Amino acid sequence: MQEKLKIFYHIFTTTKDAIEKFMNMLDPVIQNATDEHERLYYHHIYEEEEQRLSRLVVLIPLISKFQQVNDENDFSPTNNEFNRLLQELNLEKFGLHNFVEHLDLALFRFTDAERSSLLNSLREVSYKDYQLVKQMLIEINSRFDTNYVDPHAHHDEHHDHLDRSTTPTMDTHFASSKQKKGFTVGSLI
Amino acid sequence: MQEKLKIFYHIFTTTKDAIEKFMNMLDPVIQNATDEHERLYYHHIYEEEEQRLSRLVVLIPLISKFQQVNDENDFSPTNNEFNRLLQELNLEKFGLHNFVEHLDLALFRFTDAERSSLLNSLREVSYKDYQLVKQMLIEINSRFDTNYVDPHAHHDEHHDHLDRSTTPTMDTHFASSKQKKGFTVGSLI
Repeated sequence: MQEKLKIFYHIFTTTKDAIEKFMNMLDPVIQNATDEHERLYYHHIYEEEEQRLSRLVVLIPLISKFQQVNDENDFSPTNNEFNRLLQELNLEKFGLHNFVEHLDLALFRFTDAERSSLLNSLREVSYKDYQLVKQMLIEINSRFDTNYVDPHAHHDEHHDHLDRSTTPTMDTHFASSKQKKGFTVGSLI
Repeated sequence: MQEKLKIFYHIFTTTKDAIEKFMNMLDPVIQNATDEHERLYYHHIYEEEEQRLSRLVVLIPLISKFQQVNDENDFSPTNNEFNRLLQELNLEKFGLHNFVEHLDLALFRFTDAERSSLLNSLREVSYKDYQLVKQMLIEINSRFDTNYVDPHAHHDEHHDHLDRSTTPTMDTHFASSKQKKGFTVGSLI
C-alpha cells in the first residue's frame, strides 16, 4: 500500500499543478468572451476544476498522513479514515477523467501553438495518470472488497473512450453509442 | 435535523428523476452528432451527470437511514457515518450547481419548444433546490463547526451568478471577472 500511496501522492500533486495552469489559461478567455454562451461554457469548466482543486487540497494531506502509517492494520475498512481515503480516491479518479475531457474540449478551440502544446502535454500526463489511478483502484477495491461499482465501466467495454493512440473511427463511436443504448439509467437504481 | 433530512430526501429524489430526463434528451444528440467536438461535448456532460446519478444512488438511502434515527446524538461529528453524510451533501450541492449550468448550456442549443420547455422547467426547480441546499448546509456546517470552506463562495460575492431573475449586465460580468482576478489559485492551498 505504501508504494501505491507514493504514486497517488505524486499523481495528485502533479494534477493540482496542472489545474492551476489550465485555470490560468481559461481566465482571460472568460474575461474576453464575446458572447454569453462562450463565457458560461468556459466559466463552467473553470468552476468544475476549481471544485476539484479544493477537494485535492484536502486529499493530498490525507494521502501524506497515511504515508506515515506503519501499522498495516490501519489500511482496513474498519478504519473510518481509510474508508474516507478510498472514497476520495474513487471520486478523484473521475476528477482526472473529467479533466482529460476538459483538455480535449479545449484542444478543439485553442489551436494556437503555445496553448495547444501546453494542453497536449497536460493531456498526455493526465491520461496516463488516470489509467494508473484506475488500475490501482481496481486492485485496491477488490482487495478490500468495498463493493465499489464503477458507473463508467460500460463506456470502455469495447474501446477505451479516452485513448488517442488508436484513431477511433466513426464506427467505433456508433458501436459505443449503440452500446450505451443498452444501458438504462434505471438499471443503476 | 429531521425536517432538513426530509427536504434533502425530496430534493435529491427529484434531481435523480431530472438527471434521467436530461440524459434521455442527450442520448440521441450524442448518437447523431455531426462532428467530433459536438459528440465529445455532450458525451462529457452525459458522463458527468451519470457520475452524479451513481453517487445519488448511494446518498439517497443514506439520507433515508438517518431519517430513521431517533437519537439526536447520532447527528454529531463524532459519528463517522454522519460525517460521511455531511461530506456527501456538501459534494452534491456542487452536483446541483453544475447541473443548473449543464441545463443553461443546453438551453443555448436546444431551442425547439419541446426541449427548451422541459429544460426550463428542470432549470427552475434545480436552481431553487440548489439555493435551498446551499442555505441548509450553511446552517448545518456552522452548527457542527465542520471547518468547511466553500470554494465557490467568491463567485457569488457581488451577484448570485446562477440567478436569472435579474438580467445580469456585461458590467456585472466584468465585475465578476475582475473579482475572480483577485482570487489566486494558490490562496486555496
